[in-house]
This record gives sequence, structure tokens and C-alpha cells, in this order.
Amino acid sequence: MILEHAWLKIIPGQEEAYEAAVREALPIIESAPGCYGADLRRQVEDPTRYLLSVRWESVEAHLAFRETDLFPQWRSRTHIFYEEPGQVTHFSAPLERERR
Amino acid sequence: MILEHAWLKIIPGQEEAYEAAVREALPIIESAPGCYGADLRRQVEDPTRYLLSVRWESVEAHLAFRETDLFPQWRSRTHIFYEEPGQVTHFSAPLERERR
Repeated sequence: MILEHAWLKIIPGQEEAYEAAVREALPIIESAPGCYGADLRRQVEDPTRYLLSVRWESVEAHLAFRETDLFPQWRSRTHIFYEEPGQVTHFSAPLERERR
Repeated sequence: MILEHAWLKIIPGQEEAYEAAVREALPIIESAPGCYGADLRRQVEDPTRYLLSVRWESVEAHLAFRETDLFPQWRSRTHIFYEEPGQVTHFSAPLERERR
């Protein structure tokens, strides 16, 4: 499992509209092959910034989503609120822990 | 619930030692009052970078941890591996979703 992190800056004043749009649009991402779920969190220090976390089977599953018909549906609902391009990174599954 | 994100850059070549140290040291954070658990994930694009995610009852619970005797125990085991100061931010609980 891979975690996609998109760190997003929203046009000030558009936060409520953005959240409503994401509520409607998250199922679009979540219907993509290899997607295990997505969440949006608002940043405490700068409430015009959000973190979109998406759990994917692999980085390839995320990149493949961008080539599907789902991606323009997601983009048209959400990217209109971005003040600047998001910063997207991927993280591995959590470090395995010893059982105690 | 609040999510602390610490985005960390580790001295190249020290990744294995860092991961071993974190495995030992995560229980120190997790024993702090108001801590609900912590995870470390490695960045795909730059494997010298890691994301430490800590779930806290509140931002105040995180800040209070830094004033406890636990914090120097955590710091002495892990901060020695940092190439530069970490970038720390906090995020709110995930956006509430409509039930469908």
C-alpha cells in the first residue's frame, strides 16, 4: 500500500465551497482501480491549506488513474479551487513494528 | 483528533539505523498523554525523507509532550539522524462524509 499526499493551497474564501466539492468528488477517486480510500484534512496553521491523502495499491495505480476518464471528472470539480499547483508525494506503508 | 505531520530529511546512508531507532523509540511518543499512535513512512520520490504521523487528542497534547521528560528521550534517539530540522504541521480530523 502506498499513500499519496497532495498538499493543496485553496483560494482564500473558497474553503467551504471546496470542502463541499470534495465531499461530492471523493467517490470519483475512490472508484478508481487500485484505490483503497481517500481523506481530506484541513491544516491547523494555515486553514487555506489542505492535505488530500489517498491510499493506493501502488504508485502505478495512482498514475493510471490520471489516464482514466475519472480524472477529468475529479479535476473539473476540485482544481478550480487551487490557488497554486498542489505538491504531490508518495509514501510507503508504515514501518513494520515489533510485536511486544 | 489532530494529526501531526513531521516531514524529515535523514542523513544519507543512515536510513537503516534511523528506522531501527524509530522502531525502538515510537513507544516513547505513544506513551505520552493524549497520544493515540504514531507511524513512520518512507518517501518514494526521495528515500532519505520520511513522514512521521502522530495522532493526538489536540495540538495542545502534542505541545505538552515537548515539555515532558519523554521528549528528550525521543529526541536523543532520533534527532541525531536528521540532516535538517523537520517541517512540522498539524491537520484536523478528516472531512466528514455523507453516508450513501
